[in-house]
Amino acid sequence: MKKYCIIVAGGSGRRMKSSLPKQFLLLDGKPLLMHTVERFRSFDVNMEIIVVLPDEHISLWDRLITELSFDVTHSVVPGGEERFHSVKAGLALVTDESLVAIHDGVRPLVSHDTIWRCFADAEEFGSAVPFVEPADSVRILDGDDSRPLPRKEIRLVQTPQVFRSNVIIEAYDRGFDPAFTDDATVAEAAGIKVHLTHGNRENIKITTPEDLAVAHTLLKLLKQ
Amino acid sequence: MKKYCIIVAGGSGRRMKSSLPKQFLLLDGKPLLMHTVERFRSFDVNMEIIVVLPDEHISLWDRLITELSFDVTHSVVPGGEERFHSVKAGLALVTDESLVAIHDGVRPLVSHDTIWRCFADAEEFGSAVPFVEPADSVRILDGDDSRPLPRKEIRLVQTPQVFRSNVIIEAYDRGFDPAFTDDATVAEAAGIKVHLTHGNRENIKITTPEDLAVAHTLLKLLKQ
Repeated sequence: MKKYCIIVAGGSGRRMKSSLPKQFLLLDGKPLLMHTVERFRSFDVNMEIIVVLPDEHISLWDRLITELSFDVTHSVVPGGEERFHSVKAGLALVTDESLVAIHDGVRPLVSHDTIWRCFADAEEFGSAVPFVEPADSVRILDGDDSRPLPRKEIRLVQTPQVFRSNVIIEAYDRGFDPAFTDDATVAEAAGIKVHLTHGNRENIKITTPEDLAVAHTLLKLLKQ
Repeated sequence: MKKYCIIVAGGSGRRMKSSLPKQFLLLDGKPLLMHTVERFRSFDVNMEIIVVLPDEHISLWDRLITELSFDVTHSVVPGGEERFHSVKAGLALVTDESLVAIHDGVRPLVSHDTIWRCFADAEEFGSAVPFVEPADSVRILDGDDSRPLPRKEIRLVQTPQVFRSNVIIEAYDRGFDPAFTDDATVAEAAGIKVHLTHGNRENIKITTPEDLAVAHTLLKLLKQ
């Protein structure tokens, strides 16, 4: 089945102590977002890759592409106010019956194994959401107090979240709700059952300078 | 108030693809456990540090101390079958009314700020358990299904977990229960309210070769 990947890169970079939006920060001499695009392209040369960027960053992206001779074919669309609106903008370019991966631009360390498993499970079950188990004990706030949660039943959710195109297009055909923290929660609002798939621990979301340093180390490990 | 730190190093190293127990793996040329001991000693030269080790690893520890001329004063006691029993063995050496920190031997990257906050909060509230918020969306298994949890209410729990000595000694005066995943859950079984304190994100539990590589990077950042 045809495959799409919508890479959402809407971050403003406020948490990075940097005026540069975090998807443009350099990892091994190249913006994070380019690593992310390359990761999906090297997985499948025929995948349609759609990058969703805030309107005001598209010219910067174009300039970086030229300067770094970045030659990975992809489309670019301007995003919206929330991640939800950006994904919706990307979905507008999905015209075929297909499998659609939705991925954070600042997760360049997703493994090909994870991508493979998510597409395979989405084809079988309609949806696939990658996760890792927490290494730490977990608690939840409960009024002024907190209580332990059973760690082995907790799932830390990553991307790519992959869906059959008809499922996710229909799910996103609704208004924004602040409870939508990822694509899984949007799909559930449409009555879709979310299938959980094993992710890879290195697939961290890069949101702080420490994360960037850690990503540099993990990138070298993934290349070995 | 007098301060103790019980450092529990009971891991068998099975997950590290290494026959060496993980607390002995080298970080910057020195076993993890020595980094952890030093972190507490450099925080407070007067703190009583108690290292709990599996009986069969004590001679290896002694040898490493000699070989590396490790001169940080500490006591060593043999641990028990579960982490619970090891902590109990360490608590037997706590003889003064004091504040007692209980810390994982494989968390060498705890910051002095975290240690400081935990002792201060334990003195005020009786207990202090450090946490960070998850960077990812969070779900919990629910039968064959799963459901989202509100990320902002989730706490990933670290160590040192610090308690007033009378509180934690009394709490550990009971039988083992598999629901005891950390000291907070033992304290709660004794009716103690757990106070949550901000930890530091670098304070990871080192359980895989990838964690060790990441720790190496974070150690350099902490030293800067």
